[in-house]
Amino acid sequence: MILPSIVDLVAICAKKGVQNAILSPGSRCAPLTIAFARHTQIHTRTISDERTAAFIALGMAQQLDEPVALVCTSGSAALNYYPAVAEAFFQQIPLLILTADRPAEWIDQYDGQTIFQPDVYGKHVKGSFELPDSSTFPDQLWQSSRIVNEAINLAKQFPTGPVHINIPLREPFYPEKGEELLFPEKPRVFNLVKSKTELTEESLIKLKSRLDIVQKILIVPGQQKPNPQIQAILDQLSKNQNAVIVTDTISNLQSDQTISFHDHWLGHYEVSENLKPDLIISFGKSVISKSLKLFLRKSQASHWHIQEDGKAKDTFQKLTRNIAATPLFFLNWLNQNLGAQNSQFYQAWHFLEKAVSKNLHQVLRQQPFGEYSALAFCLEKVPSPSKIHVANSMAVRYLNLLGKRNQEIICNRGTSGIDGSNSTAVGCTLTTKEIVTLVTGDMAFFYDRNAFWHNYATPNLRIILLNNHAGGIFRLIDGPANQPELEEFFETKQTLTANHLATEFGFFYSKVVNQEELEASLEDFYEDSLHPKILEIETSSLENAEILKSVKERIKLSLES
Amino acid sequence: MILPSIVDLVAICAKKGVQNAILSPGSRCAPLTIAFARHTQIHTRTISDERTAAFIALGMAQQLDEPVALVCTSGSAALNYYPAVAEAFFQQIPLLILTADRPAEWIDQYDGQTIFQPDVYGKHVKGSFELPDSSTFPDQLWQSSRIVNEAINLAKQFPTGPVHINIPLREPFYPEKGEELLFPEKPRVFNLVKSKTELTEESLIKLKSRLDIVQKILIVPGQQKPNPQIQAILDQLSKNQNAVIVTDTISNLQSDQTISFHDHWLGHYEVSENLKPDLIISFGKSVISKSLKLFLRKSQASHWHIQEDGKAKDTFQKLTRNIAATPLFFLNWLNQNLGAQNSQFYQAWHFLEKAVSKNLHQVLRQQPFGEYSALAFCLEKVPSPSKIHVANSMAVRYLNLLGKRNQEIICNRGTSGIDGSNSTAVGCTLTTKEIVTLVTGDMAFFYDRNAFWHNYATPNLRIILLNNHAGGIFRLIDGPANQPELEEFFETKQTLTANHLATEFGFFYSKVVNQEELEASLEDFYEDSLHPKILEIETSSLENAEILKSVKERIKLSLES
Repeated sequence: MILPSIVDLVAICAKKGVQNAILSPGSRCAPLTIAFARHTQIHTRTISDERTAAFIALGMAQQLDEPVALVCTSGSAALNYYPAVAEAFFQQIPLLILTADRPAEWIDQYDGQTIFQPDVYGKHVKGSFELPDSSTFPDQLWQSSRIVNEAINLAKQFPTGPVHINIPLREPFYPEKGEELLFPEKPRVFNLVKSKTELTEESLIKLKSRLDIVQKILIVPGQQKPNPQIQAILDQLSKNQNAVIVTDTISNLQSDQTISFHDHWLGHYEVSENLKPDLIISFGKSVISKSLKLFLRKSQASHWHIQEDGKAKDTFQKLTRNIAATPLFFLNWLNQNLGAQNSQFYQAWHFLEKAVSKNLHQVLRQQPFGEYSALAFCLEKVPSPSKIHVANSMAVRYLNLLGKRNQEIICNRGTSGIDGSNSTAVGCTLTTKEIVTLVTGDMAFFYDRNAFWHNYATPNLRIILLNNHAGGIFRLIDGPANQPELEEFFETKQTLTANHLATEFGFFYSKVVNQEELEASLEDFYEDSLHPKILEIETSSLENAEILKSVKERIKLSLES
Repeated sequence: MILPSIVDLVAICAKKGVQNAILSPGSRCAPLTIAFARHTQIHTRTISDERTAAFIALGMAQQLDEPVALVCTSGSAALNYYPAVAEAFFQQIPLLILTADRPAEWIDQYDGQTIFQPDVYGKHVKGSFELPDSSTFPDQLWQSSRIVNEAINLAKQFPTGPVHINIPLREPFYPEKGEELLFPEKPRVFNLVKSKTELTEESLIKLKSRLDIVQKILIVPGQQKPNPQIQAILDQLSKNQNAVIVTDTISNLQSDQTISFHDHWLGHYEVSENLKPDLIISFGKSVISKSLKLFLRKSQASHWHIQEDGKAKDTFQKLTRNIAATPLFFLNWLNQNLGAQNSQFYQAWHFLEKAVSKNLHQVLRQQPFGEYSALAFCLEKVPSPSKIHVANSMAVRYLNLLGKRNQEIICNRGTSGIDGSNSTAVGCTLTTKEIVTLVTGDMAFFYDRNAFWHNYATPNLRIILLNNHAGGIFRLIDGPANQPELEEFFETKQTLTANHLATEFGFFYSKVVNQEELEASLEDFYEDSLHPKILEIETSSLENAEILKSVKERIKLSLES
């Protein structure tokens, strides 16, 4: 017999919009497995490696903007979820983590598959709950349904994020043969009523009086999903020359009005007074560009950070105001209340933007074949609309250097790990018929190869693998490149190519080592396919480092001329 | 410049017997990486997947009986260590976990690669420390060396286990080009002076008076490393018919005097009064046999658990005394203080042991080819001395059914996960020239395939892969076998074989599907080799289930006849 509280839990999930569950196999979690698998309104899939499972759920929830349920058995399974849980927490992606557990009486008694599961995710979940371990008393069923409602509400409330329910279960775990599960038609549901935070009139007047004395406003949107309404206001602000909008690729707010080539000159180009802002306005999550962060930390500007919950995020060490409002509300108000600004400031930024834009592709074409120019060439072929998942380390840095994209750019910048890039992209493909392109390096790709170990079709997945047989980033940053430990302990040279993996998992595969092969391979790369495709671009980490340096220098020269 | 505290830390490690370090690549951890790599007395290796790295360290430390250092960068890297950390905690294996971190001022400020690292392993480490983030004040260097000493002492103190030092680091991370690291010749070291816990005379007198009224003593050693001294006493106790010694394969205390076939009849054979103990004596960690645990939980026996720290482990729900002494001391005393016991009890157990022993191999030979008989055949070929690593789920259960082994048997029974079996075996091979045989199923094997993604030679590794293309255990236990969700959500059928993996990593590989092929493949399987070898035994999960059932029934019949 399956506990009524478990059947109820799944029914509540369905009612509250949890439409997808990712399970991992296990015995202790069998009641959850069976209840999820049998519920007709929840799409349930199973993934054997829990680390992968959690990143797949994250990739799905990121697209769906609704919690995806994760179900695992007792023991270390829950710990394998943890990298994705932390990523979800910092990237504010809703997950409902359901970990089966032994009942408390059996913990730490030398009996199998137990760890200390309650609160195991520490500060990396929005809330941590424990279901009652029986339905002996009627109030326990009430408690259980209350917890499930509360947990899902919390996951969906701003800032969205992961919540954990630990679920102690006793045998029997399985229904009798032929026993049907009866889901309650009307499980108890209470929802969080949507509310909004507004700034008081008094606050707005004060902000307005501050605005009246600033002349050079730099708007820096952090990581977020595409948002056409915000995009339109930013474009308007820029068209009126009322603000400079500096966008990393993960802001998903790039347009012909925004600055995106700043990483080419900030930090190694003499910055004129005209470029220095007196007010920084930020919203969204992290930015990639270290040069931008250092530039702003050195500035004399004030910084207003807009975030609905008013939390302090002092990324530039200049925070003067937390503004607890939605970015949309605030930017609308800003647009309506901003007078004429310093036009030299605007022009200085856009002059540099245009200069890099004009020269970059020519400079790249003059370089020998390497991952930088190869990626630039690939990106031109990516269809639109579509999604680009990009792995951490060099892949996302290259993308950021290569300018504006029409596609949605997704990257695990919550913790900036390489541990789940493949899986997150796989999760994304499960939610869309659009093409999903994963741009990744060899370390991230092989690290997370279990992403492909499952029985679900991902025909819309395309992988551009920049294989330099090493963590090439370590040759590209200053410190390690000079150390005798470079190759063994930083780059960790490795000789793998993706061909065996492709054969094993039934992916189409081609490897290119020069421009001609690249062009030939890309011809049908984005054509429809029954299977995912891998395009492996094999280059030398040594040459890539030379190219990056050379491009940087030539761009600098072109700006100074 | 590398912080003096980091150079000091590595020098202290070397002085205190930490002879091995497993690093994973990263930038924040560069000062640790460089200091470990340059210390001549510490053997340092690098493993890219931190989950694998930690299990490899665990596999090494388990053999070496000394802490192995783990070094990772900031962010989710530390979380990928967690499954192995929990396993180390419950299996009491010493690890020194060193996680580089951003300094506190940069946590949760939308800057890259940060999570909440202090205390991140919760209750699954023996201690959690944080190094000072600078050497500005002389006392900070003192604090730092004190913490490192304390942490290593704690890892080595009974029960040994993992300890965590979080290490906030600021740039610069790298020494200047050509700058030499000067390790202090005499770093500050304080060691824990060895002590012992002894039972008082009064306690011994009381225990003796209890002993005088028991007649049927069952000794159940839990998981432990081989121990010839304990083995000798147990053999003596058994020879004198003063106790019945029931040994799981992971007890590493099996001999011609011990019971090891109990899993064949406990639980599905009518147990006579003669078999019921009146005193259970246990020491070591967990036991595998669920039937044994259920049998003892239903018994009327008292239970004495011997554990140096006196912690209560009430595995059989019959605990009457915690005995804070070393097993060696207690068993010696027991051997000297035990009068004549009930000989029917002794004979009843040994009669059944002999009966199964006599019949099992014949019964197996009469079965069609399957993983049960194939594994039995393989085990006869394993050289001795050598080590057998066995994965959780069915592999360890088969091994336990197949009787006594001469080799050391190692299995991750701390949390009983399948997540690190390959890596733990790889770690073991790095510590010995003896053959290391990994016996594993397909789920555990493919789950942890990153175990082989590194540049270190493991020519002494042999892998016996029982591939039934599923988590076959779910067909072998009662509940899930009857559910429509069996294949998709419990077994999670998968079609992989190891041949691509073998090619990719340069392993010798052979696949067998019948007895003739198996015999041919085994002929040179254990011969010296430059590369690891995989022997894949492909069978059907459906047939394996039939065979297991049939063997059980025939053994039962043979006992009743």
